Amino acid sequence: MNAFRYECLASDGAARLGRISTAHGEIRTPAFMPVGTVGTVKAMTPEAVRATGADIILGNTYHLMLRPGAERVARLGGLHRFMNWPGPILTDSGGFQVMSLSELRKLDETGVTFRSHLDGSRQHLTPERSVEIQRLLDATITMQLDECVAHPAPEADAERAMRLSLRWAERCRTAFSERDGYALFGIVQGSTYPSLRAESAQRLREIGFDGYAVGGLAVGEGQEAMFATLEATVPHLPRTAPRYLMGVGTPSDILGAVERGIDMFDCVLPTRSGRTGQAFTRRGPVNIRNARHAEDPRPLDEACRCPACRNHSRAYLHHLVKAKEILGSVLLTWHNLTYFQDLMDDLRGGIGAGRLATVAAGLRETWALGDIPPA
Amino acid sequence: MNAFRYECLASDGAARLGRISTAHGEIRTPAFMPVGTVGTVKAMTPEAVRATGADIILGNTYHLMLRPGAERVARLGGLHRFMNWPGPILTDSGGFQVMSLSELRKLDETGVTFRSHLDGSRQHLTPERSVEIQRLLDATITMQLDECVAHPAPEADAERAMRLSLRWAERCRTAFSERDGYALFGIVQGSTYPSLRAESAQRLREIGFDGYAVGGLAVGEGQEAMFATLEATVPHLPRTAPRYLMGVGTPSDILGAVERGIDMFDCVLPTRSGRTGQAFTRRGPVNIRNARHAEDPRPLDEACRCPACRNHSRAYLHHLVKAKEILGSVLLTWHNLTYFQDLMDDLRGGIGAGRLATVAAGLRETWALGDIPPA
Repeated sequence: MNAFRYECLASDGAARLGRISTAHGEIRTPAFMPVGTVGTVKAMTPEAVRATGADIILGNTYHLMLRPGAERVARLGGLHRFMNWPGPILTDSGGFQVMSLSELRKLDETGVTFRSHLDGSRQHLTPERSVEIQRLLDATITMQLDECVAHPAPEADAERAMRLSLRWAERCRTAFSERDGYALFGIVQGSTYPSLRAESAQRLREIGFDGYAVGGLAVGEGQEAMFATLEATVPHLPRTAPRYLMGVGTPSDILGAVERGIDMFDCVLPTRSGRTGQAFTRRGPVNIRNARHAEDPRPLDEACRCPACRNHSRAYLHHLVKAKEILGSVLLTWHNLTYFQDLMDDLRGGIGAGRLATVAAGLRETWALGDIPPA
Repeated sequence: MNAFRYECLASDGAARLGRISTAHGEIRTPAFMPVGTVGTVKAMTPEAVRATGADIILGNTYHLMLRPGAERVARLGGLHRFMNWPGPILTDSGGFQVMSLSELRKLDETGVTFRSHLDGSRQHLTPERSVEIQRLLDATITMQLDECVAHPAPEADAERAMRLSLRWAERCRTAFSERDGYALFGIVQGSTYPSLRAESAQRLREIGFDGYAVGGLAVGEGQEAMFATLEATVPHLPRTAPRYLMGVGTPSDILGAVERGIDMFDCVLPTRSGRTGQAFTRRGPVNIRNARHAEDPRPLDEACRCPACRNHSRAYLHHLVKAKEILGSVLLTWHNLTYFQDLMDDLRGGIGAGRLATVAAGLRETWALGDIPPA
């Protein structure tokens, strides 16, 4: 078995080119993790997800614990086998979605009690149970249970939640079973308050984790505040471990976060947008539902290698989305995930060559051009 | 350019092994045509449809004329280019769906007037306009406009509709532009009345078509009456042209119709069922939603070559369908279309080897076994 290991292969300013070795294979960083909510990256076969260039996907503990259930997934050989994704999988702790999706939720020192949004059943999620569920799922990377406050949060609330998250971090560290090639990540909290972030990061380092996530961002604070918070947080994280910015984001968010030293990302944006007709292209976002595309024979993004762009016109994609055809969701999701992976590849190439600034300027310039003129 | 040509390569009883040459490639018969309702075989990329073994697909004139519109498809280079299916396409006339889907429909000698189910707009479909739409779509095989009566129909109603369909057949014949490798098919009507069917077939032969369809079946008359009607119809059709049983059907329907001399089929069953959790297997139908599959690690059909069976368990498919995941629809559609194409391949092999009876007995015996016992 391989140890879980992060190697920094090159750096360019704060940005890092790296490689994470895991029990389920390697992850090239900076990495974008497609979200496989409930055992599937929505609308994609696992083979197609792999073909977009993804090394690792994310699974949602909240969804999987309710259906099909962690014990059932374990009896079926774990999430890798269940969904036929042999590569690395990171699972979140479930806490974030308990707070956003469930009913009658109540948080105390022990954990969080809630009712399932599916059947109303009463559930109790503690740091120990979250770690146990993630072990049952056979997650390559387990995330600690934490409390993420809404934005804006008064400093006292942010401090209380950050300290609770630290106590839960210790309990997760204790509950986690060490296995070769598997990892447990801690999560830095503290809203947009630099001193809270610094304290959270330093305390987590003292507990000791295989990787460090920055949580509680992309919750409405805006890009400027997010970047400022990263600048106040990343210098307090160890150079020897991967850094993961949770739930982020747009291509521009990702670029700015990579420039500030982040190695891993996840976001539903490419998949969710793919099901509503929103495409990400080298020239910025395109709403394929717009009537201007109805007779446009050109590809969505002529530089893209995905099947939506190689085999189909904007006119056809427009038609599929307007007609609510499943193939529209499939093709736009495929495109968006391909675009995000190609973006990560460009960033990795830029860092490796020591010319990230040039790559970044080129990306921003092309995004700013906006979509190609109508046909 | 190639002429449109049917060749009978072998026969076994009334069953025929054949090949149809068209402007867009060859069709091995007996053939099953997946239904590509509105420019897409639902939930499938065209590459995946081709990989199941389909030589030809069907498009629905009614849907396409309303959205995106025949003239728009023509401006975009025709349906083949629009949906990226370079192979043969058969389009129906639109008449059947006008009667089943539209509102305020009114039929007279000129054609049928109706309101679109999408926007309520008033539409008039005549034999000439139906042929024109199918030309604009660039259909390889154009179907005449006909009137299909509901079942049961009094003989007088069936006779009136059959005679109207014959007058429309003549008008379609006149309106159709001959092009190398393209074809126009007539449609035999007459409900379950043998004398009406015989008259319809003979009159259509006199008009002269490139192929002959049997319409107005699989509308509730039951398999026995359907087979009896085929036996009363097929002997009146020319040996030199393909015979197409419209809207049929189950694997058992297809087998019985092939034994009675039918060469072509279309049905929404494999695609529609694929979106509701119904799978067709070598051991008969399986409802993957059933709780017995929830922890079954075995493939849906261990003899099947499709991605659902090669890469995934029944437990996973069960989960996807219960969670209403798009991938569930994708994988079960893929499986069902693969099963139908493999069935056609078995039938073609049986006819070619002069042992269709043995192949048919084997198929029926295995269907009757029912699903594998619970794990």
